Amino acid sequence: LDDGFCLKTRDGSSQFHLKGLLQADYKTYDYDLEPAGIGTDPGTDGFDIRRARLIAKGKLSPLFDFAMSYEFQGVSSRRLLDAYVNARIHDVFSLRAGQFKEPFGLEALSSDSDLFFTERSMGFGLNPGRDVGVMAFGGFWDNALYYRLGMFNGDGMDDATGGNVDEPEVCARIGATPFAHAGIPLLKGFHLGASGSYQRADANTVSLDISTAGRTDFFSVATNAKFSIIRNCDTLIRHGADAAWTYGPVALFGEYIQVRYDDIESKAQTFDAEMTGYYGAGAWIITGEPVLVSQGAIQPVIPANPLGDGGYGAFGLAFRYDNFDAGDKVYDTLVFVGDSVREAEAITFGFNWYLNQYARFSVEATHTTFDQPLLIYRDSSTGTSLYSDKEDMIISRFQLGF
Amino acid sequence: LDDGFCLKTRDGSSQFHLKGLLQADYKTYDYDLEPAGIGTDPGTDGFDIRRARLIAKGKLSPLFDFAMSYEFQGVSSRRLLDAYVNARIHDVFSLRAGQFKEPFGLEALSSDSDLFFTERSMGFGLNPGRDVGVMAFGGFWDNALYYRLGMFNGDGMDDATGGNVDEPEVCARIGATPFAHAGIPLLKGFHLGASGSYQRADANTVSLDISTAGRTDFFSVATNAKFSIIRNCDTLIRHGADAAWTYGPVALFGEYIQVRYDDIESKAQTFDAEMTGYYGAGAWIITGEPVLVSQGAIQPVIPANPLGDGGYGAFGLAFRYDNFDAGDKVYDTLVFVGDSVREAEAITFGFNWYLNQYARFSVEATHTTFDQPLLIYRDSSTGTSLYSDKEDMIISRFQLGF
Amino acid sequence: LDDGFCLKTRDGSSQFHLKGLLQADYKTYDYDLEPAGIGTDPGTDGFDIRRARLIAKGKLSPLFDFAMSYEFQGVSSRRLLDAYVNARIHDVFSLRAGQFKEPFGLEALSSDSDLFFTERSMGFGLNPGRDVGVMAFGGFWDNALYYRLGMFNGDGMDDATGGNVDEPEVCARIGATPFAHAGIPLLKGFHLGASGSYQRADANTVSLDISTAGRTDFFSVATNAKFSIIRNCDTLIRHGADAAWTYGPVALFGEYIQVRYDDIESKAQTFDAEMTGYYGAGAWIITGEPVLVSQGAIQPVIPANPLGDGGYGAFGLAFRYDNFDAGDKVYDTLVFVGDSVREAEAITFGFNWYLNQYARFSVEATHTTFDQPLLIYRDSSTGTSLYSDKEDMIISRFQLGF
Repeated sequence: LDDGFCLKTRDGSSQFHLKGLLQADYKTYDYDLEPAGIGTDPGTDGFDIRRARLIAKGKLSPLFDFAMSYEFQGVSSRRLLDAYVNARIHDVFSLRAGQFKEPFGLEALSSDSDLFFTERSMGFGLNPGRDVGVMAFGGFWDNALYYRLGMFNGDGMDDATGGNVDEPEVCARIGATPFAHAGIPLLKGFHLGASGSYQRADANTVSLDISTAGRTDFFSVATNAKFSIIRNCDTLIRHGADAAWTYGPVALFGEYIQVRYDDIESKAQTFDAEMTGYYGAGAWIITGEPVLVSQGAIQPVIPANPLGDGGYGAFGLAFRYDNFDAGDKVYDTLVFVGDSVREAEAITFGFNWYLNQYARFSVEATHTTFDQPLLIYRDSSTGTSLYSDKEDMIISRFQLGF
Repeated sequence: LDDGFCLKTRDGSSQFHLKGLLQADYKTYDYDLEPAGIGTDPGTDGFDIRRARLIAKGKLSPLFDFAMSYEFQGVSSRRLLDAYVNARIHDVFSLRAGQFKEPFGLEALSSDSDLFFTERSMGFGLNPGRDVGVMAFGGFWDNALYYRLGMFNGDGMDDATGGNVDEPEVCARIGATPFAHAGIPLLKGFHLGASGSYQRADANTVSLDISTAGRTDFFSVATNAKFSIIRNCDTLIRHGADAAWTYGPVALFGEYIQVRYDDIESKAQTFDAEMTGYYGAGAWIITGEPVLVSQGAIQPVIPANPLGDGGYGAFGLAFRYDNFDAGDKVYDTLVFVGDSVREAEAITFGFNWYLNQYARFSVEATHTTFDQPLLIYRDSSTGTSLYSDKEDMIISRFQLGF
Repeated sequence: LDDGFCLKTRDGSSQFHLKGLLQADYKTYDYDLEPAGIGTDPGTDGFDIRRARLIAKGKLSPLFDFAMSYEFQGVSSRRLLDAYVNARIHDVFSLRAGQFKEPFGLEALSSDSDLFFTERSMGFGLNPGRDVGVMAFGGFWDNALYYRLGMFNGDGMDDATGGNVDEPEVCARIGATPFAHAGIPLLKGFHLGASGSYQRADANTVSLDISTAGRTDFFSVATNAKFSIIRNCDTLIRHGADAAWTYGPVALFGEYIQVRYDDIESKAQTFDAEMTGYYGAGAWIITGEPVLVSQGAIQPVIPANPLGDGGYGAFGLAFRYDNFDAGDKVYDTLVFVGDSVREAEAITFGFNWYLNQYARFSVEATHTTFDQPLLIYRDSSTGTSLYSDKEDMIISRFQLGF
């Protein structure tokens, strides 16, 4: 029962695992609504099923393994997530084909259930995310140095159909734990990563949605905002860098991502558009369980004394500062003002109770400030619009993952 | 193989069950169509996949268990049904979080596959149904008295987004088998239940759909019917009471549900809207297998001599009278006349053949009468509308559940 | 591990199988675009998840078994595929109820993962496909002669709601391996099949979509094309005949299908509409593994020396000619010219590498010619339309099925 519920053949050469993930949330929000006195209650508090996933993984021979995962929750969010096959040719060179996460970013490549926070940072929307394609990957010196290099459609998951350029997007990531074998305990858990992607883009590819930890969209690129219907776009380039340091029950980590669209053509002009996000975060498991970053992904915390059997599980604290910033050119041209703001920053304090290996309860508070008022609520019958330049949110989450 | 196909760890502390439910129907309808002579064939006869579900259940420690079920059938009906976690703290106090059925009603809380009828009574649409939230539950004296008390979003399943009031709906149920330990065989199987729900409502919450056993919608509340666009609504209150008596192979049971919207505001007026449904039913297993109601849910019939091995399974008969009645105020204001009728009553005779523990074949006839003609069929090219004040329906269902 | 991952009870009387199918494609296209010089890049090259399916099968007693399969890929393609129960009464007479493939055609009834080609022939769209209903089936002389006879809604899968005629569609198939027991090796693998379907149709039933091996739609029947809104239709009749001959590692097979709508009524006229498709194909497993057609379905190729263990798997070649032809009446009345062409023919060369029992890698080239230019790409901003009278396509597919 280490990796879901498992069926094996007698010799262990073939295996099939069934895994699941369930997250049940309760969220409550607070805004400084303007104009004051009119609006009252944007009605956003409530319970939510955030994720309800089943994952099937298997190994059919030493050479081939596969994974499929499906999100069952939500009319618009339910979809096939992962569906890929690995050909394990050699430690330094294997192949993956199908739909999976493009190799970009520490936070994006870490499993959602393993993160120290309930939601990813605001810059998460700058990552390429899942896409359909092929990828080569491998590692050296016991994965002290590893690489991933892939080609993808460049328009997101199979369901999506943005972009009609024939050439694939190229996405690569390289990571290292340079002191892994140096014998210095304090530096052993130091991890560096760099990611990049390049694609020839077109008008359909110019699309981005950024949201707060409360899942409020606050920045959406629209191809027909203002007077500027986008006619064409040349390239879409992403850069990212991340660093993490773990030492016993403590982790410090941060990440920077930049996205640039070059030569967006509208009727009036041709311009470049740039957006950046970054965060710095720390986590501490009070009860002393170790935290690990391995192959560019945060690993799950396993409580030493699970609830029951006299134990109370593990307890952890986490803190994050994160920031999103869109260039003036993007903001002046590609968004609807009010629906989008140009800058946001947020601080998050989280408390995690790891009840046992499978269950976790989190309580987290996030304070997000915008550089100008954001539309929070529009009453469709009266036409009243309410704005706020901050969002305070408290979330409680019960997570069960096996 | 008692509860689906099961995987266990060696010590039995963790388990994973896979279960399924498949229902294949053939239905044939008869109407008294008006105007006579024009319309002929509303074309409603046919085969149908009614349910195709997979259910995953599991126990991860003595403390935590979970359930997920998904409906795979139908573009508009496929969705996540259950997705919840139980924390089994104590017999008298446990917690459930996620999406599940609100604790309301005997018929609604009984599993569809265990009912004596292919479809629930007309009042079923008055139940709150599944919603996202948390619930406390427990029982006393070996569950001779049990309670459930929950808070929910109050707008139905996760997919739905009715209502934008911040306060949760409260729903509670209490049930008892008062003579469970009294040593009187005739009274042992007597069960009483009462349910109630309360929520602060708004215009978006005013929504109801009621259908016959033939799944013909005959009463739909529309927020903009007639001249009365609903601007606001104050509260939504549901009451329910149910009783069941089982003795050997015989069951008698009935239920009453009332739903009231208070202070619905339209342009012209403010009024209350009230709808009620009730039924009385009986079932008899001719071959003598016992029928049970336990913790407010009808339990499955297990044939003593399954088909094959010289047996022929179990045979049962069932009868139901049910009634739906909407108040004048609702009918005059919130429905489109013709699409909706104010009153309906139905009688159902059913025959069930329980082939074995998993398979069941049912043939059932329902005669439904409406207090005025209901729109049955509208030909989109000619514009002809056909009405009927009754619906006769015969359904054959093959059900496989494991 | 012969039939997916399997759970059994100790006595083997009940079983549950979990199976999966994953196909990851890369496709590249070439057209002769007209008008030349304007259009450049229809942007159709790319990666694709073609199928991502989970299949649950089980046996609950010697009498009952069931199957459910679900396509998880694609917003518009994900749906319940199979959901049926078999009652295994006797070798010569069993019953099936639920949703499953109507008994029509060799290619349609063969599992997609077992075909020698990545996509079925153009005439595939003439098959009735999956539908909801009941079917009797059985075989004689060890299935040397077999039959299937079913009744169905006649409007496709449960999701679909075409047709509002009460009477079911009847679909039948008969097949034989006449020399199965004759002791002549050369003739043992000779298989003949014939299929037919009949339904009373109406205007909603008149619907067909035909596509190339590159999945480009090139013929779509529209009920309101041109001046001819279809008001009614009398019957829909399908005929099909197929033959296959296998001898060791060689297979030759072909099929002919005709679809006819009788008495289509539009405002101006009443006419019949007829469409036909046929193909001839051959396959050769170079490494000598046998190919089989059993009960009217092509069986999977099992490599004798799987990759690893010193082996390299099995290699195969395949060739197909296929043709689609719509009658003049259909073409003049029921299609939008440009979006649809009247005739197409295609040749396909394929190479298959069966890595092991589960994994296959295919590279295939198809050259399709149309009798007139087909609309390939329409630029929504400039309004430019590009046409081509041929399509060249190369597809690479990695398939994992267990």
